[in-house]
Amino acid sequence: MRKILIIGAGKSASQLIKYLLDKASTESLEITIGDLSLNNAKKLLKNHPAGKAIALDVFDKEQREAAVADSDIVVSMLPARFHIEVARDCLTYGKSMVTASYISDEMQELDPYVKEKGLVFMNEIGLDPGIDHMSAMQVIDRIRAKGGKMILFESFTGGLVAPESDTNLWNYKFTWNPRNVVLAGQGGAAEFIQEGTYKYIPYQRLFRRTEFLEIEGHGRFEGYANRNSLKYRSVYGLEDIPTLYRGTIRRVGFSRAWQMFVLLGMTDDSYTLQKTEEMSYRDFTNLFLPYSPTDSVELKLRHYLKIDQDDLLWDKILELDLFNEHKKIGLKAATPAQCLQKILEDKWTLDPEDKDMIVMYHKFGYELDGKKKQIDATMVNIGADQVETAMARTVGLPVAMATLRILNKQITTPGVQLPISKEVYEPILKELENYGITFKEYEVEYLGYNPNNVGG
Amino acid sequence: MRKILIIGAGKSASQLIKYLLDKASTESLEITIGDLSLNNAKKLLKNHPAGKAIALDVFDKEQREAAVADSDIVVSMLPARFHIEVARDCLTYGKSMVTASYISDEMQELDPYVKEKGLVFMNEIGLDPGIDHMSAMQVIDRIRAKGGKMILFESFTGGLVAPESDTNLWNYKFTWNPRNVVLAGQGGAAEFIQEGTYKYIPYQRLFRRTEFLEIEGHGRFEGYANRNSLKYRSVYGLEDIPTLYRGTIRRVGFSRAWQMFVLLGMTDDSYTLQKTEEMSYRDFTNLFLPYSPTDSVELKLRHYLKIDQDDLLWDKILELDLFNEHKKIGLKAATPAQCLQKILEDKWTLDPEDKDMIVMYHKFGYELDGKKKQIDATMVNIGADQVETAMARTVGLPVAMATLRILNKQITTPGVQLPISKEVYEPILKELENYGITFKEYEVEYLGYNPNNVGG
Repeated sequence: MRKILIIGAGKSASQLIKYLLDKASTESLEITIGDLSLNNAKKLLKNHPAGKAIALDVFDKEQREAAVADSDIVVSMLPARFHIEVARDCLTYGKSMVTASYISDEMQELDPYVKEKGLVFMNEIGLDPGIDHMSAMQVIDRIRAKGGKMILFESFTGGLVAPESDTNLWNYKFTWNPRNVVLAGQGGAAEFIQEGTYKYIPYQRLFRRTEFLEIEGHGRFEGYANRNSLKYRSVYGLEDIPTLYRGTIRRVGFSRAWQMFVLLGMTDDSYTLQKTEEMSYRDFTNLFLPYSPTDSVELKLRHYLKIDQDDLLWDKILELDLFNEHKKIGLKAATPAQCLQKILEDKWTLDPEDKDMIVMYHKFGYELDGKKKQIDATMVNIGADQVETAMARTVGLPVAMATLRILNKQITTPGVQLPISKEVYEPILKELENYGITFKEYEVEYLGYNPNNVGG
Repeated sequence: MRKILIIGAGKSASQLIKYLLDKASTESLEITIGDLSLNNAKKLLKNHPAGKAIALDVFDKEQREAAVADSDIVVSMLPARFHIEVARDCLTYGKSMVTASYISDEMQELDPYVKEKGLVFMNEIGLDPGIDHMSAMQVIDRIRAKGGKMILFESFTGGLVAPESDTNLWNYKFTWNPRNVVLAGQGGAAEFIQEGTYKYIPYQRLFRRTEFLEIEGHGRFEGYANRNSLKYRSVYGLEDIPTLYRGTIRRVGFSRAWQMFVLLGMTDDSYTLQKTEEMSYRDFTNLFLPYSPTDSVELKLRHYLKIDQDDLLWDKILELDLFNEHKKIGLKAATPAQCLQKILEDKWTLDPEDKDMIVMYHKFGYELDGKKKQIDATMVNIGADQVETAMARTVGLPVAMATLRILNKQITTPGVQLPISKEVYEPILKELENYGITFKEYEVEYLGYNPNNVGG
């Protein structure tokens, strides 16, 4: 029997665990799930004979070390900042490790020691990062193998609500951590390169410079820029590429409406407000509007943001109950961002029968035999329900597949890794197809960077 | 002879030193100026027999201690973060001390020890903070003495160019540290209270929520909110006041135009740009605009900011040469804010014959005998030239006057102080009148918070 230790039994672990339990007898696996809550861990195992649940506090050194020492490979599904403790134990006890998170500087520093011990620390093998890396590198490597030269790479990912569960004017529900959605884009300008020119978008304009994307059979989407596009130059070996842009996908109109919260200051997480526990939604909205002895909060907001009478923006605001004087925030000493999250959660929480949807869109521009060409690749995955979500599938399955392959010595290159080599992405992308995670490719005309779709 | 040590011989020290040298023989003073540059120190002394210049590196503990030990009182005109080292030496050697800076937490912690030794550490006694404290407390104390209850306090200060030297469309030149002007308003929302309602303005809207101020004989100004109005509740004993607002004064139209830089992202100081040394002003502007294979930078900017053909905003942009492709930034690895500062300095630097202007405006609303009343107080001071600037006068003279009064035991309350007690503000405000720094008071109708002047 080979022992797999999975630390962290959150929502995203369900499909990962299911995959491994399904293979337990053919692959001789014993799956231990460690979580702060023994109940959480048990719930995901459903009394499977190959599963074992343990209560595990990642800050309890003894507990953690004992669990790592007793396993053959470790999967950490904890929040990214907690991986490093687990990683150090894995190094001490000579275990390989898998995470779906970005490689931190601390993690990268372990690389020489991980190599020395011949271990594989595979990271960034969820959805984004993860499937984005693998699907992009597969096409880039193919273009290069034909002798093509990459001249444009754009890549967008979004976690959305499926059309059949899309019941609000924002065409959005929280399918992942709501806090990350409220804080999206903060902390620095978005930086990227277009036709050889560096471009920077500050937070206050980020949601007004979207571009449109159309996916066959799924309609129109929009994308706003991610902060860190340029680091992909070195990761993907695209050092001299004139256009490189990464973005986040939403349904059309979301960003324009979200800009309202940005302009009001409601997404700020840097200071706490006074008396938020007893504050009504209406009072909260009024905090960010000029004082007037006579004018209504409604009119002040309309004037402040210059919203026309017949603009759908207005209906989006009403739908969120921003002017309700009876609903209370009910949070102690909360930041504006925390209050906004509370208000949004009232309306944007998925119902038990709701389905989520993952959308990914890559554009690959290249030059081959003196001609400029472009391949677009898209992936859409729709969840089954609130347990088997598209998010849990697309994050968990690549992690599970990589874990088994490392255990089976099919992935062997030692060190702190991410899934950009053929050895890793070929078999995993192939296997993901069995689970409905497939890319469609289109040969399209190369037009250069997005000459008609750039937002103001 | 009494020895005064002045550390830091910057621009703001000139009038301070002149005042003390003028009093040197009647008051038996010996003035030592310590500066990193012996030449700077010498320049300000002009060979005055009572003056002595020394080279002083504030980080050289021995040098610093020797200079402090050899003095009767110490004035620190260094940047605020360097005061604490000097303050600790003053405590060690039993010397009183004066600064024009806000009391830092570190400085406040010295309070019990300063009291124990019977010393006076007087801070915040320049212009803002300084004259604002003194002139406000004088009126507030007078209102209270009559039995009035404060219900509104608004206070605005600005460092501007004098009308006779006002030669650009922005009606602005740098009369103080340009970096502070470029970064103004960043680092958190502006927080204040209006008619009992807390209000918050995020940076992205700060320059669009100005209010107008009119000063007899000087025309119209505008004010945008400072970040930290609420702390003045405890400083001035205004704990329950329903309206408290502090702001910065500019000429009308400045803020609306400045908002352009905010929206573009040009005031960001949190990251460095690529290749700024060889970058033209035009390239810099283009960094913040969408890529287009055909459209001009001019049209893109106009469209991006929705600037009408006949809007004066456009002329303000042209005046700054933002589209010039020959002028280079010439700074290595600069932030957007540093590049913008460079561009603005080309146009906004004072000529040797230019005069600056300080403007202060207070509004005091109060209730007396069941009636609501208001006093407005204004101060305008215009510099003589580029040495005797209004800024150097209004910052330096109160510091000098406080120093002499502490030395003469006219100000004696020990501890870490700011100038809010009668003992301090009465004689100093009186003496400042001899130097043309005078307030005009007007009884005006109480209208409550600014009901007609609030910006959108």
